[in-house]
Amino acid sequence: MVASPHRDASPNNLELRDLLESSFQNRNLVTMAAGSPVPLLKDHVWLVVRGMTKLVTSYMSGDEALLGLVGPNEPFGEPLSQVEPYEAVTLADSDLLCLRWDELSTNPDLSGAMLMAMARRYRQAESLLALMGLRRVEERLRGFLELMARDYGQPCENGIRISVRLTHQELASALGTTRVTVTRFIGQLRDEGWLVMEPGRHLVVKLNQSR
Amino acid sequence: MVASPHRDASPNNLELRDLLESSFQNRNLVTMAAGSPVPLLKDHVWLVVRGMTKLVTSYMSGDEALLGLVGPNEPFGEPLSQVEPYEAVTLADSDLLCLRWDELSTNPDLSGAMLMAMARRYRQAESLLALMGLRRVEERLRGFLELMARDYGQPCENGIRISVRLTHQELASALGTTRVTVTRFIGQLRDEGWLVMEPGRHLVVKLNQSR
Repeated sequence: MVASPHRDASPNNLELRDLLESSFQNRNLVTMAAGSPVPLLKDHVWLVVRGMTKLVTSYMSGDEALLGLVGPNEPFGEPLSQVEPYEAVTLADSDLLCLRWDELSTNPDLSGAMLMAMARRYRQAESLLALMGLRRVEERLRGFLELMARDYGQPCENGIRISVRLTHQELASALGTTRVTVTRFIGQLRDEGWLVMEPGRHLVVKLNQSR
Repeated sequence: MVASPHRDASPNNLELRDLLESSFQNRNLVTMAAGSPVPLLKDHVWLVVRGMTKLVTSYMSGDEALLGLVGPNEPFGEPLSQVEPYEAVTLADSDLLCLRWDELSTNPDLSGAMLMAMARRYRQAESLLALMGLRRVEERLRGFLELMARDYGQPCENGIRISVRLTHQELASALGTTRVTVTRFIGQLRDEGWLVMEPGRHLVVKLNQSR
């Protein structure tokens, strides 16, 4: 079991959004449709206000790898990466706020809240690293879906609904495997009853919520 | 090429150390010999003042994976991870400062500097994720040594000296491969002249420093 429930209490999230709304009054707020590439500007970070962005890199071989998912109240951008090539693409219709990185770190009201947000991003990256060390693809897939459920899921009648839609190819990129293998193991997890596919391709994961 | 030179300017590092020294006056400063496990205390982070700590997880299979290297002016600890099991071990004789996480985020003098430090940790984790997606172990090894050289190396006559000592087994854990494979590729990189082994097992990497 790789990911345990360990998120910041939600007050921090609310606090950051409130702070940003009052500090920036929605200047530099940009709305983008799902599937849009987000331009990476030097010395600026994007803060996801609504929606979800994926961060990816690609290799000479043509393979792609997922470096992270960035959800509401989380930052990404040029100052936060040293990977090349580096691409950010919205996974859902999103509102994004563009902020100067030095402004965040020198504004005492913002830097504390942003530190919490940065810690969330770090924990996710570390969890992905732990997952990538699992030998069996099935364990990586189960761990990845657990991570998505805990980080971005909503509790529902049957478990936790993952509202982010990732294709089997995107899951394969995230897990260093092939689309065919993902499809096979997704089927297995559904047969086990651990995973349920709801209308509209939403996944519902049955986590033991008492953990 | 995965890692490009993109570190914060060193003034930030100095600033954080100065701030901590004045804020905390070395209370909670602990000195540990190389190879010591660092106790993880709830709601506290450790800040490396001198030395280096590695973060690892282990699997049911008995395999281990490196989750990160934490160098001077960088934090790690219980609030910054959701991986289980999770272990921190000093790789060199180290001075570590134990700080309450909520104290860092609410102290406006500290939170800005800590945000920069957290961003460095995040960039490293993301770079490791990008490396893990490389198919060929040789590329992963070369990329990992480049990352260590850029993050923690010192320029010297022959290139960049990596002062952290990792065994071939530790490199293998970091790269999801075997000790034997690491030893073979280290030999290859030495034959190429890209890697030089100095007395005392220090590695020197020939990076193109103009990049």
